[in-house]
Amino acid sequence: MEVTRQNFKDSLKTVYSAIEEADFLAIDGEFSGISDGPNVSALTNGLDTPEERYTKLKKHSMDFLLFQFGICTFTYDQAKSKYIIKPFNFYVFPKPFNRTSPDLKFICQSSSIDFLASQGFDFNKVFCHGIPYLNKEEEAQLREQTEERRNQQANGINNQSFTSPSSKGPAHVPQEHKEYINRVIGKVEGLFTSSEKTLDLEPCTGFQRKLIYQTLNWKFPKGLHVETVETEKKERFIQVCKVDDEERKRREQQKLEREQEEVNDAVGFSRVIHAISKSGKLVVGHNMLLDVMHTIQQFYLPLPEDLPDFKEVTMCVFPRLLDTKLMASTQPFKELINNTSLAELEKRVKEGPFKSPLVETAEGFHSYDTGQEQLHEAGYDAYITGLCFVSMANYLGSFLTPPKPHISARSKLIDPFFNKLFLMRIIDIPYLNITGPDLTPKRDHVLYVTFPKEWKTSDLYQLFSAFGNIQVSWIDDTSAFVSLSQTDQVQIAMNTSRYAESYRIQTYAEYIKGRQIKEKVEPTPKSWGEDSWTKPNYTPATSAGFGYPRKRSISPALGEPRTGDAAMTDGWRDYAYPDSTGSKKMKTDDKSGNANAIESKTSEGWLKTGDASDSAGSSPIPGEEEEEEEEEGKGEEEEGSPEGNDTEGTVTWQQAPTSQGKKGQKNKKKSKGTESSTSLFDVPEVW
Amino acid sequence: MEVTRQNFKDSLKTVYSAIEEADFLAIDGEFSGISDGPNVSALTNGLDTPEERYTKLKKHSMDFLLFQFGICTFTYDQAKSKYIIKPFNFYVFPKPFNRTSPDLKFICQSSSIDFLASQGFDFNKVFCHGIPYLNKEEEAQLREQTEERRNQQANGINNQSFTSPSSKGPAHVPQEHKEYINRVIGKVEGLFTSSEKTLDLEPCTGFQRKLIYQTLNWKFPKGLHVETVETEKKERFIQVCKVDDEERKRREQQKLEREQEEVNDAVGFSRVIHAISKSGKLVVGHNMLLDVMHTIQQFYLPLPEDLPDFKEVTMCVFPRLLDTKLMASTQPFKELINNTSLAELEKRVKEGPFKSPLVETAEGFHSYDTGQEQLHEAGYDAYITGLCFVSMANYLGSFLTPPKPHISARSKLIDPFFNKLFLMRIIDIPYLNITGPDLTPKRDHVLYVTFPKEWKTSDLYQLFSAFGNIQVSWIDDTSAFVSLSQTDQVQIAMNTSRYAESYRIQTYAEYIKGRQIKEKVEPTPKSWGEDSWTKPNYTPATSAGFGYPRKRSISPALGEPRTGDAAMTDGWRDYAYPDSTGSKKMKTDDKSGNANAIESKTSEGWLKTGDASDSAGSSPIPGEEEEEEEEEGKGEEEEGSPEGNDTEGTVTWQQAPTSQGKKGQKNKKKSKGTESSTSLFDVPEVW
Repeated sequence: MEVTRQNFKDSLKTVYSAIEEADFLAIDGEFSGISDGPNVSALTNGLDTPEERYTKLKKHSMDFLLFQFGICTFTYDQAKSKYIIKPFNFYVFPKPFNRTSPDLKFICQSSSIDFLASQGFDFNKVFCHGIPYLNKEEEAQLREQTEERRNQQANGINNQSFTSPSSKGPAHVPQEHKEYINRVIGKVEGLFTSSEKTLDLEPCTGFQRKLIYQTLNWKFPKGLHVETVETEKKERFIQVCKVDDEERKRREQQKLEREQEEVNDAVGFSRVIHAISKSGKLVVGHNMLLDVMHTIQQFYLPLPEDLPDFKEVTMCVFPRLLDTKLMASTQPFKELINNTSLAELEKRVKEGPFKSPLVETAEGFHSYDTGQEQLHEAGYDAYITGLCFVSMANYLGSFLTPPKPHISARSKLIDPFFNKLFLMRIIDIPYLNITGPDLTPKRDHVLYVTFPKEWKTSDLYQLFSAFGNIQVSWIDDTSAFVSLSQTDQVQIAMNTSRYAESYRIQTYAEYIKGRQIKEKVEPTPKSWGEDSWTKPNYTPATSAGFGYPRKRSISPALGEPRTGDAAMTDGWRDYAYPDSTGSKKMKTDDKSGNANAIESKTSEGWLKTGDASDSAGSSPIPGEEEEEEEEEGKGEEEEGSPEGNDTEGTVTWQQAPTSQGKKGQKNKKKSKGTESSTSLFDVPEVW
Repeated sequence: MEVTRQNFKDSLKTVYSAIEEADFLAIDGEFSGISDGPNVSALTNGLDTPEERYTKLKKHSMDFLLFQFGICTFTYDQAKSKYIIKPFNFYVFPKPFNRTSPDLKFICQSSSIDFLASQGFDFNKVFCHGIPYLNKEEEAQLREQTEERRNQQANGINNQSFTSPSSKGPAHVPQEHKEYINRVIGKVEGLFTSSEKTLDLEPCTGFQRKLIYQTLNWKFPKGLHVETVETEKKERFIQVCKVDDEERKRREQQKLEREQEEVNDAVGFSRVIHAISKSGKLVVGHNMLLDVMHTIQQFYLPLPEDLPDFKEVTMCVFPRLLDTKLMASTQPFKELINNTSLAELEKRVKEGPFKSPLVETAEGFHSYDTGQEQLHEAGYDAYITGLCFVSMANYLGSFLTPPKPHISARSKLIDPFFNKLFLMRIIDIPYLNITGPDLTPKRDHVLYVTFPKEWKTSDLYQLFSAFGNIQVSWIDDTSAFVSLSQTDQVQIAMNTSRYAESYRIQTYAEYIKGRQIKEKVEPTPKSWGEDSWTKPNYTPATSAGFGYPRKRSISPALGEPRTGDAAMTDGWRDYAYPDSTGSKKMKTDDKSGNANAIESKTSEGWLKTGDASDSAGSSPIPGEEEEEEEEEGKGEEEEGSPEGNDTEGTVTWQQAPTSQGKKGQKNKKKSKGTESSTSLFDVPEVW
């Protein structure tokens, strides 16, 4: 269902009930751009920490507009053994609702716009008919303003800036308007003696209307209702009605309701997000970090400065999230899925061992045909994201004894994937952990190197030629991370560089320490979402046991009650993170413990810890893949730039090449070659 | 005529010939926003210097996109005594033409977008079908790249980054591609022995294509033409043809031409602007400073740092400009025209004493109906701007003896309006003088006041209550200009403030001096437009005699040759500015002096110097007016903000009000009241 400003109010009930009845919902956003930095590689260093990545995305990606929001609700029909889906495609635009409302500016990135244009995106629906919205603060302000104006009118001093509040005297009418105002008074006096009930004054300026209000309020404190009416030509005039006290009250009540309605209209699309949040339903997205960040920024509040606060806000807004890109990159799926781009994933899960779920589009909704791709319409993308989730979730059921063909959104089997958002192109941290501290992989083998800006990748290979294979992750023109293949060579490299003048080497630990000194001490945690916000009525079931048991087998629950809380085995709760500071705000949900915990035949297999050395315990280990699709608007590389795939800041080589590019031509960050298809190091690669 | 990417190339000849045959052309641009500052008042202080204004506009208005460009050419048909017009409406968008081309980001302002949407603007035409463009530097870069690639191919080393240029050895084929490449070699060898002329390889990756090129180039240096072809599905494959040397050369020539064509396509809409520039024709606009700035920025070069350089660039791009808003605000028109907004002006010049010119739309062009307003479509706005110009110009002819009904675009009568661009809302400097130094009105009566940020307008009135009427022009939260009505009170005010702690007063002269010290010394003038640029083939006729004779009557020429240079009376050239530094780059055009200079009956009247004290001699003195329309997207004020018209930073009061707004409510910058309709000071007011 396409929803614009024109049918938004009429659709709202349908939207609310679809959310209410859903087992889960899938979302997707389309933006006016991705990165306002010079290029994406500046945004995605392969050795970013989660904090760094968050800060970069916040800085370089939040000035774009999320202008299409897709929601597809999935409701399982037990009788028919199929999902009933309701896809929605919302067009969103921050139309200023009046002169004093925020006049938002947003950035458009030509490549993103051009990409959407090539996909048949309808920009007129966004810009001409987009649904307005307000964040929580703007909403509060508007409600306050409305309230204030109402109080003023109730006190008869609705124009307090011109009549002194204490005197309540007559309005000061400037000389040049005196004749006009006297004429109006005459007409109104005439109204009292005539049989007419209503008097329409001629259209006039805002200032004149103001004077009329003041004058009539003072001269005729009772018996009149004065109102501004707009003609079809948008001309405004004042309508004066004779009313008794009761009628006057009734009209004022009507006006109040109209004003409330106007506020609700201004809150607009945010109401849909509030409803999702309030429902506490599982929200599924594909590579959804940016979607989540944009959603919070546009419809709730400016993104918090620090990552822990962002996580807390996210949990308030979306208590249960699941990222299908992370799921597809994780055991047992990574073995089966080479390319986790949404389009490829959708194709892949149509084939064995996956089974396409039975799906029926609810009556009155547009029925998508996955044969005819409509990729990058948000509603369609949300729909196929949901399909991918269902296929993958059901595949997990095949490992149960006996196998189960349908795995619900509340099954314990999918708990491991909750609230972990895929991190693009970070070598050794596959996801952002919303409900706890992030993985802190050892980076003992990583060096931080600074050098003159003339240096190219080949210079770094030459410098480290004695240390075997290296991996270079460019940070900027004059610095990069260099990963050695053997940690024991780090000290040797450091020693070698001691007397170097043109470049400088630090260990990763030194680098991090230096950064932390530069940054301010973390402020005391603010309490987001406590007061004015809608609190989710769902207490996240996984908030107690975030993370994965280290080297432990998972015990999926069999019971899978369709309603009520999911089962939780004991094993989940007593796992402690080495760094437990992040869990201080987490709640424990102890109510459910009634499931039969039996050993599934694959529990060893599909949640096995990767060989990667990460100190934060086991985790879903995403598979290697060639990232192609998620950079929307970037096509296949050109003949003219034959250096090969742009790896966005991370290059992998087996051998330091001797002849790197033509003299004087900078081609750092552009080389990858073909050798990178095999992993060099035993860390999970995620791009 | 609507022109998008789809019909651009086919329309180009029509556009070129329309420009070539025109007597003058009118232009108008539509932008994605106006100001990225917090509000327009930050952009337009009533006492800005031209330098300050330029710097502000450059900083706060240039990140928006000029996405619709209207041109209307006007050609006078002597026989029919009417103008033949050709209106064009170009949709413009910086579509990246390949992976390595600039990925421009631009800002959209919701209010502007919403305003255009309400006028029926078609955003899809911009974003989906907008004509691309390049500025001069990007064009040069692209031509260089193309040239370089061609040279490389001619030398047989088109992939020099993988094959060492010196060795010209075989390409290094990675192990995993060897089998594939060998298969390709086999097929090509088969081609040589078969009767087929052409071999289509299967679609493959860019890297594979690269390897194929390298291998075939090396293995079969002669007898083959290898080319990448794209299928309808945008899949790329390699086509190999058997060719003899001649055929090979022919194909390479074709390829070269295709590449040149691609470059021209990428230059796109810029070619239209280049054609206008080259024509040297009079270009008319309404309130056109932003149009000119955007045009230069998008299609020529990033705007220069300093105003003098901007003026020089502008003269290179548009040797003859005329701003109808300035014209309408100047004697003899200011007496007749109350509101100089384009819509109101267009209505006004339909009535006496103006005469609507006879106009005929050329065959094949969309005929606009001025009865049915299509305001804010750039082509329409350009059209009515041209109409306004013709009506006003013809009105000047009525003062001649004998009166002339038609005044051509080359008449001396309009020379006084050349190359002066209207400056919005500057109290005493009506225009930016492109061909010379700007007016430097005396600001002896102006004080620069700094104060705590809690201060409101009323605090300033109180502070200066002893000095009679004042006028406040807010600069920011903590500073404002205060104009006293009498210059002799300035010293008294200064003395009074000597021991003040909370605020500080400087004279305007001190303020300017302080600013100049802060700024760097003006760098030596750069030579814009000397090398790579198209030089205008028109030497501005007025460049010698910019400015107006002080207290002198103008002697309009009668001859008005339709072709050839316009007449120039002696009086023009020997007028010297007090500050003549700005004229160092100006050229003198002495070729024409053959007109009969006779005294027109109105020469005293319509170019009379205003009473304003401006040291730079007489000038067109714009009339007072209520600026309403030019702030696009701002409607009439709301009941809810009854402080009246937002005067964007300048407030005029006759009396210091005693009760200003409710306690604690900031309403500075919002108050105007109605008293401002009479001018307080004898300076030209332009807002």
